[in-house]
Amino acid sequence: MKCLIIAAGKGSRLSRKGNSKPLIPLLGIPLIERVIRSANQAGIAEFYVVSGYNGEQVRPFLDGLAVRCGVTVKHIINDDFEQDNGLSVLKAKEHLSEPFLLLMADHLFDPGILQELLKEPPEPGAITLATDNNTANDRVDMDDVTRVRHEDGKLVAIGKDLADFNAFDTGIFLCTPALFEALERSAAEQGDSSLSGGVRLMAGDGRVNVLDIGGRFWLDVDDPRALDKGERALLAQLRDKPNDGPVSRYLNRPISVRISRTLSRFPITPNQISLVSFAVSLLAAVLFAMGGYPALAAGGVLAQFASIIDGCDGEVARIKFQESDYGGWFDAVLDRYADAFLLFGLTWHAFAGSGAPIVLFTGFMAIIGSFMLSYTADKYDGLMRLRMARGKGWRMGRDIRVFFIFLGALLNQPFATLLLIAALMNAETIRRVWVSREPG
Amino acid sequence: MKCLIIAAGKGSRLSRKGNSKPLIPLLGIPLIERVIRSANQAGIAEFYVVSGYNGEQVRPFLDGLAVRCGVTVKHIINDDFEQDNGLSVLKAKEHLSEPFLLLMADHLFDPGILQELLKEPPEPGAITLATDNNTANDRVDMDDVTRVRHEDGKLVAIGKDLADFNAFDTGIFLCTPALFEALERSAAEQGDSSLSGGVRLMAGDGRVNVLDIGGRFWLDVDDPRALDKGERALLAQLRDKPNDGPVSRYLNRPISVRISRTLSRFPITPNQISLVSFAVSLLAAVLFAMGGYPALAAGGVLAQFASIIDGCDGEVARIKFQESDYGGWFDAVLDRYADAFLLFGLTWHAFAGSGAPIVLFTGFMAIIGSFMLSYTADKYDGLMRLRMARGKGWRMGRDIRVFFIFLGALLNQPFATLLLIAALMNAETIRRVWVSREPG
Repeated sequence: MKCLIIAAGKGSRLSRKGNSKPLIPLLGIPLIERVIRSANQAGIAEFYVVSGYNGEQVRPFLDGLAVRCGVTVKHIINDDFEQDNGLSVLKAKEHLSEPFLLLMADHLFDPGILQELLKEPPEPGAITLATDNNTANDRVDMDDVTRVRHEDGKLVAIGKDLADFNAFDTGIFLCTPALFEALERSAAEQGDSSLSGGVRLMAGDGRVNVLDIGGRFWLDVDDPRALDKGERALLAQLRDKPNDGPVSRYLNRPISVRISRTLSRFPITPNQISLVSFAVSLLAAVLFAMGGYPALAAGGVLAQFASIIDGCDGEVARIKFQESDYGGWFDAVLDRYADAFLLFGLTWHAFAGSGAPIVLFTGFMAIIGSFMLSYTADKYDGLMRLRMARGKGWRMGRDIRVFFIFLGALLNQPFATLLLIAALMNAETIRRVWVSREPG
Repeated sequence: MKCLIIAAGKGSRLSRKGNSKPLIPLLGIPLIERVIRSANQAGIAEFYVVSGYNGEQVRPFLDGLAVRCGVTVKHIINDDFEQDNGLSVLKAKEHLSEPFLLLMADHLFDPGILQELLKEPPEPGAITLATDNNTANDRVDMDDVTRVRHEDGKLVAIGKDLADFNAFDTGIFLCTPALFEALERSAAEQGDSSLSGGVRLMAGDGRVNVLDIGGRFWLDVDDPRALDKGERALLAQLRDKPNDGPVSRYLNRPISVRISRTLSRFPITPNQISLVSFAVSLLAAVLFAMGGYPALAAGGVLAQFASIIDGCDGEVARIKFQESDYGGWFDAVLDRYADAFLLFGLTWHAFAGSGAPIVLFTGFMAIIGSFMLSYTADKYDGLMRLRMARGKGWRMGRDIRVFFIFLGALLNQPFATLLLIAALMNAETIRRVWVSREPG
């Protein structure tokens, strides 16, 4: 399926954020790159982009992006970008003789919307418009959004000033080439060369289907406020990870997403963030081992800080389309080393103070228990998903472990902390092995 | 697909091993259970068993087995078991009106043979015989085997005394009900009521296809020598595990399969063996921690012994059809604990002797390195299979680690051993992380 993206407009309300609207970054990624990568996640690999205003900046960027993403991007130039956006669509007429997706360069969306849309192609001569039937959607700018009215799955009215409406136009269309003819007729007969004009004309013939996006995310980024709303919306999605433990959910994530928002503006890779978090943990372990309460307390704070940063690698990867199996694994391996060093530092601290063998043994049991918890996590998760038929439910994990280290260090109770971690982690490991055994 | 199994004969040459041949155990599992479980592995779940001699023992056993295996077993009784085996087949005539598999209760075989056979059903009115075209197969008893000659995929002669032959009859057939009619005709016209007689008659009409088993394992267990050969053959298969490290392959497995052979005769579960191996490792760790060379050396020997027993759980599981995902995981979890305790015992031993912090740190690094090696093993294996397109190749693992502990203890070099393990295991972990990274 080919995809046409309209990126010719001037976007004057965002001009202070950058002089080419499609290239304005949101969480470090230009708007048009987000559109192309989201569409790519839905399986689209062949793009036609209509550029106009500042096209000499947009086109080289897209050429580079095409290589990085492994997609093809063909340029269509519209020098009449000051006029209605229907003209931009019309420029693509000669390139598109089959059904195609039509997207706006400044509309963010959940790739799931495209997947739904692609399931039911419109009949020949018709088009389908993805609509947001939630008219209470507070991310929508009521002064600027295109309103629609639909009945029985067909569009009946469209326009910015529509008083009687029951949905919003998301700017996402699944089209047939019939749209081009409608745009030409609208321009010639009504003097209206806007995209809405062409759609309105087709709606009059009952040739515009509507498909509700079912509450999925979309956003038209037209001004600085919308840009900020978009960043907040993407960051909010990061906070809803089903496996997150309570410390992650209520303490670490709220802080880490704020850090990730800042980090996303810089060319820092998720693996580099993993390494930084690891280095901070190492430093904390060294502070533990140095002895004395001030170093212990400072180490505890650093350890908790490292645990917070440890959330950022995955968050930045997700908001910058850099997720990878390797990245997740690399982070997990570093986390295991970090945990072990923290606990060894704490053990050293406690043992140097008392010289009691039991301290050494307890520290060893805390290290092994923490490891076993990670070692058994994947198997346990898989089993729980299978047996309980649910993906939800947190598991005892790293967030709790490091939080105990943090508290224990602040309270100057290294041995009690080791004892608690050793008991909890090994007990949970044994519980997992027990509940996982075959029935009967 | 239904499966008919002939289990009526007396098997007098094995009578001193048990008074009902199908129930004589081979590595702890009765011959007929092996046949049914092997067929079940090839996807067969509906069995008809012709019992005769000592059928009052065979039938209750099969009823219990059916429940344990989740298959159905229907009994067919042949009181004429002293006569030719074709009569046993004929007793099943009224039960089988569709193509069916025909197996002998005393023939062991690789389930892959059935899978191959089931791929190409014979045309109506014909049957297919699985043949072993390797006439040099030294597991075959030349005085007793049924010899065959085939040309162009068709059987042309069959008999125990055939001088000019090019394959052996494996006793594995894919039949159509046409076989029953041939058996009746052979008995009536030739006075030959043996299975071979019926097959010979069909061969005369070109209605017996042959399929070579391609070197797969099969064995007719007719006498104590064959029983021993069968045990050795199954044990030999255990020794060829592609991921086995060098210590496993050349030291541990040759010993562990001998132990497994003995263990298989007792009602001991694989998980119980895992627990025993773990307990022996714990004992070794305690000996290490006690201090003094004699305890150290004894601990080293025990550790290596535990490592050898650690192979038996999987071996017994395989030869007794008790393999399970949980069993493998349970063993892995216990192994991680065992490794950690052994290394902690060794660290304690070395630290108590010297009191040097570097010893403690080295022991800690050995424990963490060993853990990381196991933690990264699955991911690394999967990746190597993918990238190198091969399933072969050993990985550095537990066998080497414990062998170093064994040697180090014997040579009274606990610190050097910890140093070596720490260096090797962490270096290998880092190497894995490095080679696994994404290209580019």
